[in-house]
Amino acid sequence: MDTIKHIPENGKPRVVIIGAGFAGLKLARQLANTKYQVVLIDRNNYHQFQPLFYQVATSGLEPASIVFPLRKVFQKRKNVHFRMADLLEVNPNVHEIYTSLGKLSYDYLVLATGVDTNYFGNRNIEQYGIPMKSVSEAIFLRNSILRNYEKALNESDPEWAANYMNIVLVGGGPTGVELAGALAEMKSEILPKDYPELDFNLMNVYLFQASDRLLNGMSEKASAKAEQYLNKLGVIVKTNARVVDYDGLKILMANGEIFNSYTLVWAAGVVAPAIKGISEVAATRGGRLRVDLNNKVRGLNHVYAIGDLAFQAEGDYQHGHPQVAQVGLQQAGNLGRNLKNLLRNKEMKAFHYKDRGSLATIGKNLAVADLPGIKIQGFLAWLLWLFVHLMAIVGVKNRFFILTNWVWNYFTSDQSLRVLIRPKKRSFTDKASQKLHERNRINLN
Amino acid sequence: MDTIKHIPENGKPRVVIIGAGFAGLKLARQLANTKYQVVLIDRNNYHQFQPLFYQVATSGLEPASIVFPLRKVFQKRKNVHFRMADLLEVNPNVHEIYTSLGKLSYDYLVLATGVDTNYFGNRNIEQYGIPMKSVSEAIFLRNSILRNYEKALNESDPEWAANYMNIVLVGGGPTGVELAGALAEMKSEILPKDYPELDFNLMNVYLFQASDRLLNGMSEKASAKAEQYLNKLGVIVKTNARVVDYDGLKILMANGEIFNSYTLVWAAGVVAPAIKGISEVAATRGGRLRVDLNNKVRGLNHVYAIGDLAFQAEGDYQHGHPQVAQVGLQQAGNLGRNLKNLLRNKEMKAFHYKDRGSLATIGKNLAVADLPGIKIQGFLAWLLWLFVHLMAIVGVKNRFFILTNWVWNYFTSDQSLRVLIRPKKRSFTDKASQKLHERNRINLN
Repeated sequence: MDTIKHIPENGKPRVVIIGAGFAGLKLARQLANTKYQVVLIDRNNYHQFQPLFYQVATSGLEPASIVFPLRKVFQKRKNVHFRMADLLEVNPNVHEIYTSLGKLSYDYLVLATGVDTNYFGNRNIEQYGIPMKSVSEAIFLRNSILRNYEKALNESDPEWAANYMNIVLVGGGPTGVELAGALAEMKSEILPKDYPELDFNLMNVYLFQASDRLLNGMSEKASAKAEQYLNKLGVIVKTNARVVDYDGLKILMANGEIFNSYTLVWAAGVVAPAIKGISEVAATRGGRLRVDLNNKVRGLNHVYAIGDLAFQAEGDYQHGHPQVAQVGLQQAGNLGRNLKNLLRNKEMKAFHYKDRGSLATIGKNLAVADLPGIKIQGFLAWLLWLFVHLMAIVGVKNRFFILTNWVWNYFTSDQSLRVLIRPKKRSFTDKASQKLHERNRINLN
Repeated sequence: MDTIKHIPENGKPRVVIIGAGFAGLKLARQLANTKYQVVLIDRNNYHQFQPLFYQVATSGLEPASIVFPLRKVFQKRKNVHFRMADLLEVNPNVHEIYTSLGKLSYDYLVLATGVDTNYFGNRNIEQYGIPMKSVSEAIFLRNSILRNYEKALNESDPEWAANYMNIVLVGGGPTGVELAGALAEMKSEILPKDYPELDFNLMNVYLFQASDRLLNGMSEKASAKAEQYLNKLGVIVKTNARVVDYDGLKILMANGEIFNSYTLVWAAGVVAPAIKGISEVAATRGGRLRVDLNNKVRGLNHVYAIGDLAFQAEGDYQHGHPQVAQVGLQQAGNLGRNLKNLLRNKEMKAFHYKDRGSLATIGKNLAVADLPGIKIQGFLAWLLWLFVHLMAIVGVKNRFFILTNWVWNYFTSDQSLRVLIRPKKRSFTDKASQKLHERNRINLN
């Protein structure tokens, strides 16, 4: 395998970071303009702001306003090299990674790949359900919903039309809760204006949670309030409700109940994708990599893991940290400082997670917030949610456009992004176009 | 075939409009809140603003800011029914159309399908070339360019890397000229910042025009100025240069010359798609439908054609009108008035085209304008272009976002939309998802 091109061997110790999510991006920025050479690798050429996927899925925001081109971030950071590639394998013994662009040696490898949707082995749900772990998947959900409403419109039997109108969300975490709220608002404020011919009393938004309360990661108070808000918005919330199978229309529950919907969003669990050469050594529950207090992967040297991928037993978190952006950001910060300390032969400092609290929004003026020492709900929590997310997004322009969209949508309740932009059937995906280029050339002579 | 659902038979004469481009959309709006029942059919659920496709392709604008959801346009127009469907066939004898949603009878049928890319029968160019007649195709071009730069970055041989960096535009009309200018500006202002490892002296933007001057539809003066501006921006313009074949890399010219590029944009011609049941009767050059001075399709009653699709010999235009938005808009206006006159038993007025002039922009501060009586170029023409296009776009919000983007890009020269958002391979296209839904159900009992 060839080496990845145009990455100079300039004597600087090379830190290879896999994944440009919250953790990976923060670490790369922290090591920018240091004595390290940083190689950041992601399968996309942009950073995705996951907390707002649900607004893309519900036509509230443009995909482009919640993603940010990575090359732009590092334009002026000469020691950072970005490459769009898939990681295929790691060989920790020779300090090499193997990617779709070729191989590369590292002095330090930092794995920040995050986690992916967990279907718990159910092939049907994997095939027919819609995940929400990438902006592409959010666009896919947006298009599915819009397409299904056009289909509902061409059904003479209203009962059957309802199958296209119903939306079932599986998983009562932030994604499920925030989607449920946004969809309920679409149902009451937008869709009836677009589809006067349809009877929206037939449409139901279901939120199924396998455990006994929503937002498990938050306080009982927050869970109760969230459920109350959702009920107010007309969402049918079912706790202790486990989905066991789905065929694209029928949803089978553990208790034998059956619901019908052509749209099932699967946000019920995550699993860390196996990394060949690493996971065999250090994977634990949920595929997460067991790391020490410096985020060094157990049993390996010069290999680190941060963010959702890392499993770290520390302080009050002997069963690992919650898989949220905050933990990844703090781990990236600590590892960044530690790596800089190494340059000065200072020793590494152990990581300790400081929980700054958590937030979830349910709808207009409705959110819940667990802050250190205080729990608030309603309008104030909602304002806090807006502010925190606006500040967290990368890029002044994105921030400005998101704010404008929010203000616009808040007052008009009529976001204008309800467009079903479909790829040209011919050859939209990379694969197709790759094939296109690799085909035998015709003879032009 | 079933009838399209939920379209009431309420005694109102039904006008079915096929296509929601400039002409179709304008006519539907004009007949809104009249005694007609209007059924607007388009294969997409949005109106596309074609003049700005090139800015989507060059990462200057968000796709969503140049499209507008049709249902939103007609929310308060109760006599207008929109359906997202493909037209399959027309039977003028029984006054019926057949679509992917079912059949529908009409009192008046207005065909406004516009035209599609003409590959002049060359299957290779159709397979490997990139057209620019829809926003999906513009996104496809944007993604192709970004992907090819990532590939160039992984080439050790700079000569070979150039094959990924070069961009060849075929067709010297507005699309080709405006794309060429925008790409030349990307080359000089943006790409070198994103790809410092690449040598941009190796990159060329070619614009090939088969005839002897660019912008055939405009004045000699405008053509000359446009070519001069493009040369200034570093575009290699070749007139009397006809592309005869392309294999995805090698471009063969009529004179035997060969150029290499993995990106070939085909904007060299248009053809009206055949409409089963109509074209056999009335199609003429370029598949356009021959219409009389009221835009009634020759040899048929109650069937009209407007816009690029229509071929009308009138006044100075005995060989048909130029296929530009203006003609379609004026024909829609005239037909709208005529149809309203019918309700009052007034007779139809013949159409006469008033040329209000034409514009093309080449780059920052650079445009050409042929106005009645005066031809201007440069900064003033550019301001005029900006104003005209901003006013023509549907939707206050789109207008606002486009203006903001333009101002932002003008001063930063660094549009932040360089993101390669690819559909999930699993099942993004309608087709795939349709299959998904039509599969035999598993047995849940």
